[in-house]
Amino acid sequence: MKPGARKGGRPLEPWTVLGTTQVYSAPPWITVSVDRVRLPDGRVIDDYRQVTLPEFVVVFAQTPDGRVIVERQYRHGARAVTLTLPAGMREPGEDPLACARRELLEETGYVSDDWRPLGAFVPNGTYGCGTANFFAARGVRRVAERATDDLEDTEMLLLTVEELAAAVRDGRASILSTVAAFALATHPLLTPKP
Amino acid sequence: MKPGARKGGRPLEPWTVLGTTQVYSAPPWITVSVDRVRLPDGRVIDDYRQVTLPEFVVVFAQTPDGRVIVERQYRHGARAVTLTLPAGMREPGEDPLACARRELLEETGYVSDDWRPLGAFVPNGTYGCGTANFFAARGVRRVAERATDDLEDTEMLLLTVEELAAAVRDGRASILSTVAAFALATHPLLTPKP
Repeated sequence: MKPGARKGGRPLEPWTVLGTTQVYSAPPWITVSVDRVRLPDGRVIDDYRQVTLPEFVVVFAQTPDGRVIVERQYRHGARAVTLTLPAGMREPGEDPLACARRELLEETGYVSDDWRPLGAFVPNGTYGCGTANFFAARGVRRVAERATDDLEDTEMLLLTVEELAAAVRDGRASILSTVAAFALATHPLLTPKP
Repeated sequence: MKPGARKGGRPLEPWTVLGTTQVYSAPPWITVSVDRVRLPDGRVIDDYRQVTLPEFVVVFAQTPDGRVIVERQYRHGARAVTLTLPAGMREPGEDPLACARRELLEETGYVSDDWRPLGAFVPNGTYGCGTANFFAARGVRRVAERATDDLEDTEMLLLTVEELAAAVRDGRASILSTVAAFALATHPLLTPKP
């Protein structure tokens, strides 16, 4: 690890929030706030905006033969029919893993006894936009019918890892969290050594 | 590819936007809109919210010996000092590749003659939140001092791919687009065969 040039001469420090004002709020969906912040060099920024969105989970679920549960649906945020993974909003007080189990069962009818956390990431370094929690579930088995009340009409597919990779490459899987989940679950450098 | 059960019996169709109302706008940073949409089954949803954020680029840049240009900085969206990649907001009318070249040069002082587009993805399937454009740059060489006017004080590092993978695994690289860029540039199933 070779440190390069620094712009400033100080150690890296968090900013200090001097005050925050909500400028738009539609709970539990969206809150936009304006933070007044002091930078480590003493400058004060009066209007650094933050977007709070619901925390969510994304599940990379695989059948015993390694196929991935993929959903094909229209996503209004993308204005397109696209391939995504089972995912959903964390309910207040709900543990992220409990949320992942619930969303997988509701959206697909599948359960798993083999869960692995893949990490939590911030969707946008500038604005925040919530927290994305990722999980891998292996050896899933179907125990129920799907019972989601999502607005989206959904087609469920079982794709090989290679087929999902092709969809990421050619734009059929267009949501950022799908790429991230795929990487966290299958990248040789990100997965535990067998 | 094995199609599974469908929730509805209709082909997947986009929603129809019947109207849209801006409820918060701070151009060019953030716009929150409320869409009135008609679903394919005829239901009308009066308040489907969308968040428009600036389109941005993320650059996975590697030196001739394969080291990745990584930035260590406080990101207020994550409320943490974290490892990220060179990135920035696309200016009006700017081509995404031109933006990637500009941001790499401004933020790091490096240029490349070997650029590869890695795709464009939507940060949030529900709310949108802009578009993230990814690029790989190989064989970068330093031609200038860094000249960014970003608020963030930044430390520049040259990490091996394995070191960056370790940072993704252990939470030191906590921004979603960093994981996605890492995957798009280095995942064996997402990169072109040599």
